[in-house]
Amino acid sequence: MRAVVLHAPGDVRVENIADPTIVEPTDAIIRVTAACICGSDLWPYRGYEDVNGPTPMGHEYIGIVEQVGDAVRDIEVGDYVVGSFVASDNSCEICRAGFQSRCIHQVMMGSVGTQSEYARIPLADGTLVKVPGEPTEEQARSLLAASDVLGTGWFAAVAAEAGPGKTVAVVGDGAVGLLAILAAQRLGAERIIAMSRHADRQALARTFGATDIVTERGEAGIAKIKELTGGYGAHSTVEAVGTQESMLQAIGATRPGGHVGYVGVSHGVELNGLDLFFATVSLLGGPAPVRRFLPELVELIMTDQINPGVVFDLTLPIEDAAKGYAAMDERRATKVLLTL
Amino acid sequence: MRAVVLHAPGDVRVENIADPTIVEPTDAIIRVTAACICGSDLWPYRGYEDVNGPTPMGHEYIGIVEQVGDAVRDIEVGDYVVGSFVASDNSCEICRAGFQSRCIHQVMMGSVGTQSEYARIPLADGTLVKVPGEPTEEQARSLLAASDVLGTGWFAAVAAEAGPGKTVAVVGDGAVGLLAILAAQRLGAERIIAMSRHADRQALARTFGATDIVTERGEAGIAKIKELTGGYGAHSTVEAVGTQESMLQAIGATRPGGHVGYVGVSHGVELNGLDLFFATVSLLGGPAPVRRFLPELVELIMTDQINPGVVFDLTLPIEDAAKGYAAMDERRATKVLLTL
Repeated sequence: MRAVVLHAPGDVRVENIADPTIVEPTDAIIRVTAACICGSDLWPYRGYEDVNGPTPMGHEYIGIVEQVGDAVRDIEVGDYVVGSFVASDNSCEICRAGFQSRCIHQVMMGSVGTQSEYARIPLADGTLVKVPGEPTEEQARSLLAASDVLGTGWFAAVAAEAGPGKTVAVVGDGAVGLLAILAAQRLGAERIIAMSRHADRQALARTFGATDIVTERGEAGIAKIKELTGGYGAHSTVEAVGTQESMLQAIGATRPGGHVGYVGVSHGVELNGLDLFFATVSLLGGPAPVRRFLPELVELIMTDQINPGVVFDLTLPIEDAAKGYAAMDERRATKVLLTL
Repeated sequence: MRAVVLHAPGDVRVENIADPTIVEPTDAIIRVTAACICGSDLWPYRGYEDVNGPTPMGHEYIGIVEQVGDAVRDIEVGDYVVGSFVASDNSCEICRAGFQSRCIHQVMMGSVGTQSEYARIPLADGTLVKVPGEPTEEQARSLLAASDVLGTGWFAAVAAEAGPGKTVAVVGDGAVGLLAILAAQRLGAERIIAMSRHADRQALARTFGATDIVTERGEAGIAKIKELTGGYGAHSTVEAVGTQESMLQAIGATRPGGHVGYVGVSHGVELNGLDLFFATVSLLGGPAPVRRFLPELVELIMTDQINPGVVFDLTLPIEDAAKGYAAMDERRATKVLLTL
């Protein structure tokens, strides 16, 4: 099958690799109908993470079930499905508490690869959510967003305890940050402050529900958030970048007793214990348990209540994946959809 | 008046200093009936915090109101009162959200000093809680514990979301850790694991409700907690020490999706962002908003439902304060009460 393979930083190719097969009886094989490129795919692409030999890429996917293992009970051949970037049994104590991304049997889909014609989905019954009916093209794009960036932004907003009466600040204007704005709006936040310097992303942020835009960063950004909140800081802050600056900006923008939901994969972040102590904020983050939210998100998408698929601003056939990586790397695209 | 004054690390003296006076119209002056030495007083005593000239010590207190400023409305001369180690207006948005220790008008009582015959209490109406009736000697000891160590342990247990069905691990067997056990028990925790190597403290931990004792530390301690919890880790962990080792032990002992409440004043703690990301636990800590809990704690104490005052294992007249500091420094005492 055709698949996107990273050979070295900056060197992404589309080539033939072996079709996936059922390995465990709990596996399913899906025919991927669309995949996409994630901000976190850029870390190895940019050389910030090691590339150990040719690596099949991708961890977001929607598709149609082609084959199931003997132990699969709930998912059937022909089902239109979406899953998250972490395969999970959805039955262990961690899953049942809503943290499927840290399931005791978790399999990171990035280690499997989904930017390809077919993909093996471990723990199919726990991982996959069946889509009712046939999605329109627009719904399909939104379902693909749900697979990671929407689910991750949603988790960040929930972790930050966005809700009625709350002022929510969002650090990061990539797809996850933008969709955290949509999530905060759906969760009933009173005020949503997007921290962004890009006109196109500011516009999308407003579409998703942002009430204010702050262009300042770092200490100046924190000061601006405090100015907008009577000196207190935001109740809820989403961190969707993963750098030291963004993390300190998120913590600093949050009032004591407030909540920071951080979902940017940390790169070089070190938090000083005493500063954190006196910040007196709740911190919750990590790989988002997207599976927790998927049934609700699928419902919202299939009833056209949300349209997160608009974050895809570049659509390319999988053969042009390298162009997609370059466009995201150079910030010419927010989020790239790959058609198959 | 007589007061405890730290001149240099290890050099604590009891000497005459000026009586406090009303400075702000919101102040009260109390006659301190008992004070105590806190684990955090040991940081400057041990030279881990700078001592800039002679410093009046102490931030825990119970006493009787002697004088009130013109703007004080709710507190009256003659009231028997208890307050926390942070003076707060109890009316700003941060206070109303239950984080009085980070009140926008906060005054750290450590900057005022309470190991003395009299003390000035800023923001008296917001800070002080009136005790109904006259406490017995045993109740007075417990009220003094409520002023900091009980309130801090209680916050830690609440921040860790201790409650029914939860397994709670407690790192640190000082007064705060021990009283976090009492709090977890009152909050309905199913299982409470005390991490302690000291027989006398283990015994007190059992008295307060600990169901298990773990003597291992660090990685071995984490492994033991996981072994006791089906491989998952604790739902809720209290950190009541403040060192790098204790903080990593607390985070490591907690299952993904679990909660860490940390109240040990951080000394040299640095948290790696990526490790924290993949730990996927909620972190909440800082100076405890004891004022949030004081009304409830006073009620529990005055109706003899809890007896946290038993953590005081050495009682000395204030003139012997130096002996008290030495006893705590050398771990011959868990918590020292100073009589006046």
